[in-house]
Amino acid sequence: MVLLDQTRLPAEETELVCADVPSLVRAIRTLAVRGAPLLGIAGGYGVALAAVRGEDVAQAADLLERARPTAVNLGYGARRVAREYRAAVESGAGQEVAAAVALAEARALHEEDAAASGRMAQYGLDLLAELLPGGGGHRLLTHCNTGALVSGGAGTAFAVALRAHREGSLRQLWVDETRPLLQGARLTAYEAGRNGMPYSLLTDNAAGSLFAAGEVDAVLIGADRIAADGSVANKVGSYPLAVLAKYHHVPFLVVAPTTTVDLETMDGTSIVVEQRSATEVTEITPKPGVPAGGGGGGMAVAPPGAKAYNPAFDITPPELVTAIITEEGVISPVTGVGLAELCARSSQVTIS
Amino acid sequence: MVLLDQTRLPAEETELVCADVPSLVRAIRTLAVRGAPLLGIAGGYGVALAAVRGEDVAQAADLLERARPTAVNLGYGARRVAREYRAAVESGAGQEVAAAVALAEARALHEEDAAASGRMAQYGLDLLAELLPGGGGHRLLTHCNTGALVSGGAGTAFAVALRAHREGSLRQLWVDETRPLLQGARLTAYEAGRNGMPYSLLTDNAAGSLFAAGEVDAVLIGADRIAADGSVANKVGSYPLAVLAKYHHVPFLVVAPTTTVDLETMDGTSIVVEQRSATEVTEITPKPGVPAGGGGGGMAVAPPGAKAYNPAFDITPPELVTAIITEEGVISPVTGVGLAELCARSSQVTIS
Repeated sequence: MVLLDQTRLPAEETELVCADVPSLVRAIRTLAVRGAPLLGIAGGYGVALAAVRGEDVAQAADLLERARPTAVNLGYGARRVAREYRAAVESGAGQEVAAAVALAEARALHEEDAAASGRMAQYGLDLLAELLPGGGGHRLLTHCNTGALVSGGAGTAFAVALRAHREGSLRQLWVDETRPLLQGARLTAYEAGRNGMPYSLLTDNAAGSLFAAGEVDAVLIGADRIAADGSVANKVGSYPLAVLAKYHHVPFLVVAPTTTVDLETMDGTSIVVEQRSATEVTEITPKPGVPAGGGGGGMAVAPPGAKAYNPAFDITPPELVTAIITEEGVISPVTGVGLAELCARSSQVTIS
Repeated sequence: MVLLDQTRLPAEETELVCADVPSLVRAIRTLAVRGAPLLGIAGGYGVALAAVRGEDVAQAADLLERARPTAVNLGYGARRVAREYRAAVESGAGQEVAAAVALAEARALHEEDAAASGRMAQYGLDLLAELLPGGGGHRLLTHCNTGALVSGGAGTAFAVALRAHREGSLRQLWVDETRPLLQGARLTAYEAGRNGMPYSLLTDNAAGSLFAAGEVDAVLIGADRIAADGSVANKVGSYPLAVLAKYHHVPFLVVAPTTTVDLETMDGTSIVVEQRSATEVTEITPKPGVPAGGGGGGMAVAPPGAKAYNPAFDITPPELVTAIITEEGVISPVTGVGLAELCARSSQVTIS
């Protein structure tokens, strides 16, 4: 598998070759490959890779699923391809044919994701037009990175902003830098710049001033896992934006494919939030995920031995979410029933 | 003048010698010396330095006052020492005697600040005991750096936490890293560590998760300028904490000497907020204030040419502030009348 190493962006566009499952697991853990939809695709291709190499496919799916605990898509992609492989084997196919089936399933997942991205962008744009009827264009604030880098298509939240830009209705994209790993500064600014979008970067804590000044018309974020009640796990820093948006009466919109919804997780408190290393906070590294002491050339910004609280995600409860935008449509207000209905519609399509 | 260069902390404890006013102005602009009370002291000594060197004292006061626009103490210290110098000259003192008067006034200001710090710490601790009657110790969240590094004494907000620690009632100090210049990570963690306080560092955007988990009993911050209506200008990121605190019913406490109150600024909208360079956001430098291209060894974290919104401060309106703790006492709820009364009490003491 050949991946774009996201830890090297925006300085370098480097390809990372993962010849086996353990090296892909490493790439996922160090965030060389990251972002909910892309993790699903990577999980799927990873299982197909194990199948092609004649390895234990169930074990590969298990290893991949456990590489990061919060993103549900990773397990979805891995399990889905493993299931197709197993079904092929059980129906008497030889290893080579079953591997081809697995690879075809990974490709199908990849294509579905690209198509879902386009549909979410359109639903999102329509919703923005409805919520923000005034002229002059939208001023949208986004967090982390949710563009083409994380998707088979144009992404999730970023895809909405990009479509708005292409249709002439984006006035300003506010890009949160997204500490600790700076995905906003490194990746979203990179994608916004390449697409010629009007954008400005800010430290995460400067968003408050923008809300207070009335400079934000809507917040658009992605999701790593959505529980059955509509609670949204997303990159740490999403929840404070939701509280600010509520306080300032600004719509808070979550854009995610239905594969991000996990109906088996009842509510926000049941979502496992990945806690990451303190060094991501206490040291700044040119390559996120590589400890400073590990040759990454990092720079200490805290005293030696400083402890740090470093959750990778936070949970936004449904009452703070104005709408969830999926490839199957929009839910607003966000309810468990609405979410279950959308997911049922989605599985009719994909399982048919 | 010999200053501790705060841009080199925590890696190095380096002394910075400012032999004249322009070099002190540079040190203030690059944040080698920073923090509201310390800026007042530096402004006072800077004017005394000009007086000792036989330079134009009024011009020196003016230059110093304009070095940074938001911190009111800087102008207060510079003007106060210049006023005493002028009074000495007008009453017939020679240049040498007038310079000695200026230096004595700067020293008095320095000592008053140290005394104010001790009184704020005690008022703050008493207020915490009143607001948080339960046992088990306080879990306090702070932003930016407000300790001994910014004060003639133990500081403002940090001084309260430190006194709580010394009296055995600090359970946990949560330290916001405070992007872009990381004063929390670089300076507050350094001071907390040196004092043996139980602390943990976090990215600014992770504070939301702590509030949601009920891990914050009170927020304690300093102030750079307090307007006549009780609006508080402080390091960017303070306002979102105030909104989070309100949403979670957590006390939001501002600790600042009465010299930080500017009764001539009517309200929050009249406070000039300093906008700083985009490179503070787009590049991480080992020495904040030194551009990466300027030999500081900075590292780009955003694409070349990325624009950034970089306000140094934000404004918290009085309705989000539970109490303002000064050396003259506590105001809660925060009203313009209460603030004016406290300031009148303070000027009776210092002008007598």
